[in-house]
Amino acid sequence: MKFATGELYNRIFVGLIIDDHKIMDLQKAEKKLFELETIPNTLAECIAEGDKFVAHARQLAEWAKKPNDELGSFIYSLSDVKLHAPIPKPSKNVMCIGKNYKDHAIEMGSEADIPEYPMVFTKSPTTVTGHGDVINCHSQVTAQLDYEGELAVVIGKSGTHISKEEAYDHIFGYTIINDVTARDLQKKHKQFFIGKSLDSTCPMGPVLVHKSLIPDPQCLQVETRVNGELRQSGSTSDMIFSIAELIETLSKGMTLEAGDIIATGTPSGVGKGFTPPKFLQAGDSIDITIEPIGTLSNRMG
Amino acid sequence: MKFATGELYNRIFVGLIIDDHKIMDLQKAEKKLFELETIPNTLAECIAEGDKFVAHARQLAEWAKKPNDELGSFIYSLSDVKLHAPIPKPSKNVMCIGKNYKDHAIEMGSEADIPEYPMVFTKSPTTVTGHGDVINCHSQVTAQLDYEGELAVVIGKSGTHISKEEAYDHIFGYTIINDVTARDLQKKHKQFFIGKSLDSTCPMGPVLVHKSLIPDPQCLQVETRVNGELRQSGSTSDMIFSIAELIETLSKGMTLEAGDIIATGTPSGVGKGFTPPKFLQAGDSIDITIEPIGTLSNRMG
Repeated sequence: MKFATGELYNRIFVGLIIDDHKIMDLQKAEKKLFELETIPNTLAECIAEGDKFVAHARQLAEWAKKPNDELGSFIYSLSDVKLHAPIPKPSKNVMCIGKNYKDHAIEMGSEADIPEYPMVFTKSPTTVTGHGDVINCHSQVTAQLDYEGELAVVIGKSGTHISKEEAYDHIFGYTIINDVTARDLQKKHKQFFIGKSLDSTCPMGPVLVHKSLIPDPQCLQVETRVNGELRQSGSTSDMIFSIAELIETLSKGMTLEAGDIIATGTPSGVGKGFTPPKFLQAGDSIDITIEPIGTLSNRMG
Repeated sequence: MKFATGELYNRIFVGLIIDDHKIMDLQKAEKKLFELETIPNTLAECIAEGDKFVAHARQLAEWAKKPNDELGSFIYSLSDVKLHAPIPKPSKNVMCIGKNYKDHAIEMGSEADIPEYPMVFTKSPTTVTGHGDVINCHSQVTAQLDYEGELAVVIGKSGTHISKEEAYDHIFGYTIINDVTARDLQKKHKQFFIGKSLDSTCPMGPVLVHKSLIPDPQCLQVETRVNGELRQSGSTSDMIFSIAELIETLSKGMTLEAGDIIATGTPSGVGKGFTPPKFLQAGDSIDITIEPIGTLSNRMG
């Protein structure tokens, strides 16, 4: 199942993608089909309900396959709907793993940059924006805005001291994040937070794919194109620290909560890695593809 | 005015400190005195209401000075009330400034550690705990837990590209934070987030003092005692980057929001700075005093 946060006629709703080109408003569907109002207003709240929500969404999807005169009142064409980030306003910063692909670590400096232990920094929730949204160039404060296509994990079940073996039980699903970075600020301020936290520099989406659709997230291809040119092409099999290891490390003494977002690092091919560097310019389009999640597309404003 | 988040008889409430030893439940006071129910449930929501909330709280404090048979139903002895962190569940990570006092930067390494530009990292919201709460030793994951007494600024009015001159307009008030740090994890993971984000390692409080009570926050004494022994004694006048400069830097392209918390850095005297180091042990008490905020006291569990 693929979930999304959609907007149509000024109503923002939790949506379920149907047949890849339609989206069902889950609250409306539940009301029409079952005369119930149990589905929360936001996808983050739905995730916190755990398996109950997933089972309920699955049931609604089954019902929606049957002919019904009212289907049109809660199933829309995806092309009519504005997608927001699946979790438009996370309840804490997005956690990000630095230099989690060997070739990327090297392109950022040298072999000495390959981390021995996970490097974790965060992006402010104010960075989050949706598929199709404009990324602000922030030309007043940076001349070196760069893209980083990444697989992101969304936590489904809270926990502390989660072992590698238990890690997948705590995952809800997967989405794509563009960890847009101001390289000059990242360098100047040493700790990465400032260079990673300019408004609109965390496009997320287009959808949040439930883990049942991705049995092995460590064999996905991550591709980033800028103005159609392939810049990044890596496999999640090349992560230095696997998703299970990251969850184990992060949760050692820090409670991971439902709705938490972990961006797992970017493969090589970022703008800074080219000679001369290829930083983002106003008007550039960036498309990050990870199947079966889809393509996250944004344009520089 | 000094605000707090209090708990009595299982009710968690937004409180106003009266005469330094009493606390008024603002929602209950408003209901009894004015038959109104406009005050939000959390201090963070109150702060977001801006001057309206402050004026209203001031009015309630005035009314509460008049004799009234019902005062006892909404004004309690502070000693009867459990204080939580003023903002127990921040809506994003706590932002922290690294090495913002010269002597502390040197004790962490050498003169080379004095930053040229603000270093900013974050602590997860799950770290936040209140005055009087136990700090978990996390002996499974760290052997080097250390204290850092700090003045924290709470943003009152959202904004981006806030100049130094405008900075104070965007402040709601001040509290104390103990930026408890796992030095071994901080070093091992390079970016500070993991070493700074163990559960319960951000005691905050005891109260949140409105800025009207602290006309100049750059001349406050910060003192930290461990088991009664004075370890840190510094003045906020010694910050490398002033509060106004920090707000200007942070808001350059990143929207600061009402309720955001900025811990402004710690003076010298942390445990790591001693030879041999004096890390925290189970049973240790830590008291951080910044007048007129008061003393934030916690014990290691």
